[in-house]
Parts: sequence; structure tokens; C-alpha cells
Amino acid sequence: MNYTAPQTDMRFVLFDVLDAPSIYAQLPGGEEVSRELVEAILEEGAKFCEQVLTPTNVIGDEEGCHFDKESRSVTTPRAFKDAYDRFVEGGWTGLCGDPKYGGQGMPESVGYVFKEMIESANVAWGTYPLLSAGAVDALTHHGEEWQREVFIPRILSGEWTGTMCLTEPHCGSDLGLMRTRAEPNEDGSFRISGTKIFITAGDHDLSKNIMHLVLARLPDAPAGTKGISMFIVPKFKVARDGSVGERNPVAPGSIEHKMGLKGSATCVMNFDEAEGYLIGPPNRGLNAMFTMMNTARLGVGVQGLGLIEISYQNALAYAKDRLQMRALSGPRRPDKPADPIIVHPDVRRMLMTQKAFGEAGRALCFYSALQVDLVSRHTDPAVKQRADEILSFLTPISKAMLTELAIECTSHGIQVLGGHGYIREWGLEQLMRDARITTIYEGTTQIQALDLLGRKIMGQQAVGLRHFLGEIGAFCQTHSDNAAIAPFVASVARHAKEWEALTREIGTKAAQNAEEIGAAAVDYLFYSGYVTMAYFMAREAEAATRASYAGTAEFREAKLATVRFYFDRLLPRTLTHAAGVRAGAESLTTSVEAALA
Amino acid sequence: MNYTAPQTDMRFVLFDVLDAPSIYAQLPGGEEVSRELVEAILEEGAKFCEQVLTPTNVIGDEEGCHFDKESRSVTTPRAFKDAYDRFVEGGWTGLCGDPKYGGQGMPESVGYVFKEMIESANVAWGTYPLLSAGAVDALTHHGEEWQREVFIPRILSGEWTGTMCLTEPHCGSDLGLMRTRAEPNEDGSFRISGTKIFITAGDHDLSKNIMHLVLARLPDAPAGTKGISMFIVPKFKVARDGSVGERNPVAPGSIEHKMGLKGSATCVMNFDEAEGYLIGPPNRGLNAMFTMMNTARLGVGVQGLGLIEISYQNALAYAKDRLQMRALSGPRRPDKPADPIIVHPDVRRMLMTQKAFGEAGRALCFYSALQVDLVSRHTDPAVKQRADEILSFLTPISKAMLTELAIECTSHGIQVLGGHGYIREWGLEQLMRDARITTIYEGTTQIQALDLLGRKIMGQQAVGLRHFLGEIGAFCQTHSDNAAIAPFVASVARHAKEWEALTREIGTKAAQNAEEIGAAAVDYLFYSGYVTMAYFMAREAEAATRASYAGTAEFREAKLATVRFYFDRLLPRTLTHAAGVRAGAESLTTSVEAALA
Repeated sequence: MNYTAPQTDMRFVLFDVLDAPSIYAQLPGGEEVSRELVEAILEEGAKFCEQVLTPTNVIGDEEGCHFDKESRSVTTPRAFKDAYDRFVEGGWTGLCGDPKYGGQGMPESVGYVFKEMIESANVAWGTYPLLSAGAVDALTHHGEEWQREVFIPRILSGEWTGTMCLTEPHCGSDLGLMRTRAEPNEDGSFRISGTKIFITAGDHDLSKNIMHLVLARLPDAPAGTKGISMFIVPKFKVARDGSVGERNPVAPGSIEHKMGLKGSATCVMNFDEAEGYLIGPPNRGLNAMFTMMNTARLGVGVQGLGLIEISYQNALAYAKDRLQMRALSGPRRPDKPADPIIVHPDVRRMLMTQKAFGEAGRALCFYSALQVDLVSRHTDPAVKQRADEILSFLTPISKAMLTELAIECTSHGIQVLGGHGYIREWGLEQLMRDARITTIYEGTTQIQALDLLGRKIMGQQAVGLRHFLGEIGAFCQTHSDNAAIAPFVASVARHAKEWEALTREIGTKAAQNAEEIGAAAVDYLFYSGYVTMAYFMAREAEAATRASYAGTAEFREAKLATVRFYFDRLLPRTLTHAAGVRAGAESLTTSVEAALA
Repeated sequence: MNYTAPQTDMRFVLFDVLDAPSIYAQLPGGEEVSRELVEAILEEGAKFCEQVLTPTNVIGDEEGCHFDKESRSVTTPRAFKDAYDRFVEGGWTGLCGDPKYGGQGMPESVGYVFKEMIESANVAWGTYPLLSAGAVDALTHHGEEWQREVFIPRILSGEWTGTMCLTEPHCGSDLGLMRTRAEPNEDGSFRISGTKIFITAGDHDLSKNIMHLVLARLPDAPAGTKGISMFIVPKFKVARDGSVGERNPVAPGSIEHKMGLKGSATCVMNFDEAEGYLIGPPNRGLNAMFTMMNTARLGVGVQGLGLIEISYQNALAYAKDRLQMRALSGPRRPDKPADPIIVHPDVRRMLMTQKAFGEAGRALCFYSALQVDLVSRHTDPAVKQRADEILSFLTPISKAMLTELAIECTSHGIQVLGGHGYIREWGLEQLMRDARITTIYEGTTQIQALDLLGRKIMGQQAVGLRHFLGEIGAFCQTHSDNAAIAPFVASVARHAKEWEALTREIGTKAAQNAEEIGAAAVDYLFYSGYVTMAYFMAREAEAATRASYAGTAEFREAKLATVRFYFDRLLPRTLTHAAGVRAGAESLTTSVEAALA
């Protein structure tokens, strides 16, 4: 597989569409983050991903991770350690970290752009640094002073990495069932005992120490989710002065054999009176975990985006190269024995589907990442709060849509290659196997949909949706006379109205029967996702047709064709999802019990 | 993985919905094929599939096939040979074969019902007998007397198996590019030389000899598809008197490492002046191959059906067992720490999607199989022709829909299990990997769509569609006053009208621009598939609510709930596909070239 970071489109989205520097300028120290600086960073990041990371991807899948029973330790695929060392040497682990702790203080959004490249280059490898960011977040918001000072600098330097330990054998989405226990020691630390499963990067040989962020119950904890506390449990014990001691009794018991993501170690982790430190107040662990979780969910959405992009690039190259049959309207390459398959409309439909979802998804991810910047760094509480409300609303949409679309788009990648797509040699099938986990971990699509409709819409009076619809309304208003994008603006405005109406309709029904929320949730999420992407596609069309646009005519033409394709061929998926939402709960509740008996 | 053949539903479809015995009675000797006989056969078949074949499925995936360079031969997974021997001993290889050649003369449709069970139990294993049926077909229709007498009995007895050798490295969908050559010998045989790739079951250790049906060019052949002839090339040479000789110089050069279907050997086959015999007239090999291909395409559709069913069964069992969270409307199992996940509406949506597509797909497959019976055995040429026209029209729909839906439904199976769906231990992920090839081999979904819209609709004045719409019209007419199924009948009638209108619209556009066919084809196929399935679902509802219906009230209630779910939540997919058809070619032709540059 080959990968070239789509820097032109990344820059277009970040600067021309979203005007990131105007947001950076509002943040303390952010005026120094110029377009030139960001571009230079991304150029270096692209080199790392293209040259160092991409070549490790297929190897990692073939080799997988190995668990040694004797030493209870995990070895990652051969090439991974070298890539990680070069990642650390390049300073990438601390890119967005707080300078107080040795980070480089770049906006999170710059980190997310770089992250897209990582996920294209090797999504399995990317899981090792992925959860370190979450650990830093949790420590920053909920850790004590000494915890921040001891742990954060070494995570930012890449010397240590982090994990999230939530799931137990009988407890996946339902954290209230958790059993892992924490007993207090006299010195203020705790003894953690229990078994966690599906722990991504739970053990590996890339970093010197691993910080497990673990959910567990204190002895006197109330039942259910209100009795869960969060602890940091290092693989090697860490004293308050930062000195590293002996091995802590936390170790992998086995690793899973998975459909894909084989370079990423998915561990059963056994905690046997392992020493840990409480993070945040007792019994409030879920709060701390949600901080990590939201970061991780946005990150998984970016995994989806990265997979869409890499699959597209490789399918496109094949489609231009492979000669097979003639165009229906007559030969395009009469000099050759057949036309390249890219002349066939349905091959184009598949490629354009990948391309359009990639470009719309990029705008959605980068926009969300800019909200992260506002939430974490803006000094005005009102601005912070608004950004947080938009971000909370968009996170489940971004996570679920980009991962569901990643499965679809990586499947298109296989289909474009035909039989060659199905064999390992070409790499396309690996991408679909890797993609398949993304709709499951960090909360399934179903959980995202309930988070969106149950919590963010019903539970919070749709505050995030209202902000977002306000923004869409303003965009449509501003560009109501913009002839270059008139059909897109009209379509977005019409869909925004329908979105609002659908939301009201569900609210009315849900007041009668709470099951209506569950019955509508996934279709509502897809509906929301396609309209959200339509809005971003319209903004991309607007940016590309602006008089001040400085890119090439070719880029503008390509962008407009992609936006047009999105509105013509992809946005109509809302028709089916709106019908699904409106079908209501009946065919999923009472009458269906007989069928599934 | 567990599997229980859905015999109740199979019987319901075959007897109550499609009234198969009334069709059998029209065929020579068919009056002996009673419901009791068929049920007894299926019961035995179910035992074989449940007890012998199902346990080989996961093993086959884990072990895969092995290619030995030295002997140039392929070994299948350990358990496969034993299962094949028992399959042969049970007489299953000759179930529908001509009694003249040692077959049991059962209708093809009975074979297809049994085939569904095989594909659920072990789709990879099923590829070994799969292509034998095609070889018998080709020999029956195009072989010389001695070829039929020598080859057919030993294929029907299971002693020998067959393959189809079409694809070459530079030549997949485009058979006109084929290079394999056939030089005449003085004794009337030919020397075949060339390389074929992606040959399913190209070599293996299950049968004593393998008959390769090979496409190749004679020395004086015209270029393109009109210069292709078909040959039978045995692994061990076979004389006209049936005696088996030395090894023929045809052998595997390697096997592919694939995403799934690992128990099935996908071979590169090298022909090095291998001895072969012409089947049918020179340069008319594509005709003969199409006979095989259509059989194979229906068979691949049944693979999709089988995969949907097995994934559904295992996801359903998990959903009833796994406790996680409470129903939104209040606890259903307050005695347990959580409710089983089957209470959650979206889990039900996924399971019902699997179930409904399985049941609609079953009717579509069995209906098509009954057309095969009419085509191959009816004595009235008019009846034969009509059945053939319907069958030709439904074959691409059945093949493409059931395989695309198999990918979707096996993916739902994974999703229902969450993280457990993604690990190998539970087997669900294997089903999705196995399913992924089915939209590619024996003609991609794109090829099926062009076959449907280009050849069967535009090229044949939609004769098959007209027959089928006539049948749908008659059904709707007959049941216009049937209150029990009124909403279904009304919906089917409305969609049939729209189907006709859409077809006309494309015809008008295609007259201006041939690319319109390619741009609309896949959406048109999906549209057609969902409406076709809606018709069969309405028929199932009708059969279950008939006064004469003899099944249980539970079955009736379950069936009606499933039909209702189909119309409420699945049929609305036509909205998006109709929009896709109507969007036209523009966003896929001229303007898009810049985007894919």
C-alpha cells in the first residue's frame, strides 16, 4: 500500500474552510500559531507517516502481536518499536502538550490533522499513542498536583504510554455492572484487584512504563455507576517523587485473536492487588472517564477518516491502471486492449463515495478539533461552554458516522479491485478488517446513537443541535444570493428544517413511550450525520468559489464535482433514514417479540 | 458456532408460499415428488449439515488450505475430506442428477434448499461440490454423447469434481482479453496452454479426479469474445472409454492468501499443453460458459442466504443471553443484574434486519430454483421459455442482492456481539470475511447490475420484468380485498408501478447517453431487489394468514411481525435508490473526471 498525505485538502479545510488561525488567535499564545508554522509541522508529519509508518502497516497485520506466557508480556510486530522511537525522537508525542510539562503547546486541532495521517498510515500502530492523550486529559482535569507533575511529562515525552481499563467480561457498555475492587492502603494508595478485558495496548514493548487508567469500586461504594472510582495503576510502580520501582502486579493474561487491527495488542489484564492512585474524587470515576472517553471517541472517528482516505488512494490508483472492458459510450483508450476501469460509472461511484465521505469527514473532524481547542484553551467561559455543547453534540455523530462509513468505504476499496481486493497481497482487505472494530470500541454505534438522541438531544434540550442549526442557518442566510453554490445552500437549508422537525417529532413520541428513542436513535444519528456532512460540503464549495480563493482551478473544479456528487448521490440517503425515524417503535417492540422468540 | 437448519421456514416457503408440488406435478416423473418425500430428504440433509458439516467450519478457517510446491498439490483442512466422504456416501452429490447417469432425479429446487443448509454450515467447504453442478450443466447442454457418458456419472457419484477456469491475470470481467490457447491434436483432442487465476477448488484432495472447464482460444479464432471455446481438461487424463490415465500437465502454481473463505483453495492454475476436449462448437465457448455461470450465480446468491441465516442464528442466541443495561422503558428482568440486550430496540433492528432479509431471500432463491426446474424439465417450450426469461431476469438480482445483504447482515452479526463479535473465538467475524468475496466472484455486483439493466432490461425489451410485474399485478389484484395483508399489497402495488416508471425513465435517458445505464445500474438493481423481496414478503404474509394455513399461531405471528418490519424499516431503502437512479449520469461522467484526476 502507498500513502501520500492529502496535505492540499487538509490545508484547504483547515485554513480556507474553517479559518483555523482566526480561532488560534483567540487562544492564549495562539497568535504565534501561523499558517506557515502549521504547514511546516504537517509537512514533517507527512514525511514521518509516509516514509516511516506506512511501510509498517502490512507487516504489522501479518506478524501480529505475541504474548509470552512465561514473562506475561506482549511483543509488538518487529517494525513497530523503531517507528515508535522515531516518533518520540521527532517530538510528536508532546506536540499538543502543555509547555509547563514539556509539551510544545500546539493546538489540539493540529494534532488531529497529524492524527489523520497516522490512522491512514497504520491504524493499529496508532492505538499505542492514542490512549496516552486520554490519560493526559484525565490527569490534567482530575489529577492531583503530584500526579500531574510525575506522570504528564513522561507521557508527553513518549517515555511512558497510557491505557483505559473499563471493560470486564460481563460488563461492556454497562459500566454499572463493574466488579474490579480497590482497597485503601495506609499510605493513601490503593490495592486494585480484578480482570479487565479488551484492553487496547494493555501491554507492549514500545515504552518503558505503561499507565493504566482503571475504573474500580471502593469498599463502601454505592452500587451501579455512582460507585465507580478512577485510579492510575502503573506497570512499574511510581513513587510520589517520580522514581520508578518494581513491577506492579498488573499483567496481561492473554491477547485476543481478532479479525483485524492485529498489530494492536488487545489484552486481558489481571490486577492482583496492584498499587494504584485515586484520580479525582471517590465514586466520581465516570466523570473522569468521560473526559478520556470523549477524546478517545473523537480519535476513533479520525481512525475512520484515515481508513477511508488510504483505501481511496489505493483503489483510485488501481482503477486508473487496470484495463478491463470498454466504456459503454465507446472506447476511451482505443490504443489499449481495453479501457482503464475508472471509465465505468459505477467504479467512479464507488471512488467518489470514498472521496466525498473522506472530504466531508475531514471537515467534520477538523471542525470538532477546533471546538476542542476552544473548550480547552479559550479564556471566556461563555465561549468555552458553547464550544463544549457543540462538541458534545458532534462527538457521537463524528464517531459513529466516520466509523460506519469507514466500513462501507473500505469495502468499496475491495470491490474496486475485484478479486485482487480480496487477497492479502494488495492490502485493501486489511483495511476493511481494521475498520470493522471502529464501530464497536469506545462505545458502539448504538451507544453513540443513544448518547446523541437520549442524552444530547432529549436530556439537554438539544442545546448543541440548536447552536449548530443556528450556525447552519447563518451560513445559508449569508450565502442565500451566492449563485455558485445556490443548489447546495438550498438543499442544506431544507434538510436543516427537516432535521429540526424530525427531532421534534421524536420528542413528542418519546414522551409517550421511551422505547421510541431507542427505535429511532441509529437512523436519527445517520440522518444527522449526512446533513452535518452536507453543511460542511456546502462550506467547502463556498470556500473554493470565493473570489479570494488562492488554490488552483483544478482543485476548485475537483472540489465542486465532489460536492455535487455528495448532494446528488449520497445526501439522498437521508430519505431512508427519515423514513426509519418516522416508522416508530412499533415494529421493534411488542409485535417483534414473537419473531425473535 | 451452532446451526439448526430452519426447516420450518424452508417448508413454509416451499410448500405454503410457492406450492412447489404443483410445479413438480407438471414435470415428467415429478408427480412422485411429494411433500413427504421432500421433507424426509431435507431432514436427512439437515442432519448432515448440522452434525457433520457445521463443526468443520471454524477449523477450516483456522487451518486453511496448504499448497505443496514439490508435488504441486493442495491439501484442504483436515476435517474436509471426511465430511466430503460422508457427503458422497449419503448420495448427496447426485441428488438432482439425471437418473440416466446415476442421479436421483430430484428437482433442482430441492437441491437448492439443501444447498442453503450447506452454505450456512460451511460455505468454504461448499465451494468444492458447487462447481461440479455447473460442469454437469455444461456437459448436459453442450457435451458430446461420449463426454456426457464418461464424465457425468462420475461427477454425480462424487468421485470426480469440477471447476470453472475463466479468469486470467489481465482478464477478469472482460473475457475478450483472454489469452489461453488450444492447439488441435490429430486425435481430435487439444493441447491447452496458459495461466488461469482465482480458480476456486482448482486443486484439492477431496475427489479422485478434477474436471476443469476451461475457456481458451483456437489458433484461428477471431479476436474478442467471439473467439473463445470451451474445453474439459481433466487433472488425470481420461480416455473416450472412461479409463483414467496419467497426470495431465495442469497443476496449481500457488494458492491465494485471502481475507476469508480460507478452507476453499483459490488456485493459480498452469496449463502446459494439457490434454483437453472441446465442449460445444468452436468459438462458442461463452455460450456454454454462460450456462455454467448462471447456475453458479444462483449458487452464490444461496451462499449469501446461508451466511445471513447462520449469522442471524448465532447473533440471536447471544442477544438473548448477554445481560447489559436496562430497557429504556424500565427493567424487563428485574431478577437479573441487567436485561438481556435483545430488549434494546436497535439490537432488535439488527436482528430483524437479518431475519427479514433471510426470509425474503429464501423465497427469492426457492422461487428462482423452481424456475430452474421449469426450464430444465418442463415439456412445453412456451412454459420453458417464460420460466427462462423470468430466471434470467432474477438471477442478477438474486446474486447481487443476497451477497450485498450478506455482507451487511454478517456485519450486523458482529455488531450485536460487540467486542466479542470482533474476535475469532465467537466465529461471527469469520462469516463477514467469508461473505466479502460473494459480491465479487462469478461476476461482481457491478457486472450483475449491467447484466440486469443493460442486457435483461434494455437488450431484451424487459421481457423478464414484464412477466414478473404481471405476476405481481395478478397477486395484488387477487388480494385487493384481503384485509389481513392490505397494507402490504398496497405497498407492493405502488412500488411495482414506480419500478415500471423508473425503468421507462432510464430507457429514455439511455437513448441519449449510454453512460446513463452504467450510472443507474447498481441503484436500479438494489431498487429492483428490495421491491422483489417486498413482493415475496407479501406472499409470505398471505400464506401465513390463509384460512387453510396449518402452521402454528406462533409461526404466523412471527412471520407477520417480520413482514411488517420489512415494509416499515427495510423497504424504505427504495427511496434512496430511486433518487440515485434519477440523479442521472452527470455527477459520474464529465464533471467527475477532474475530481478523480
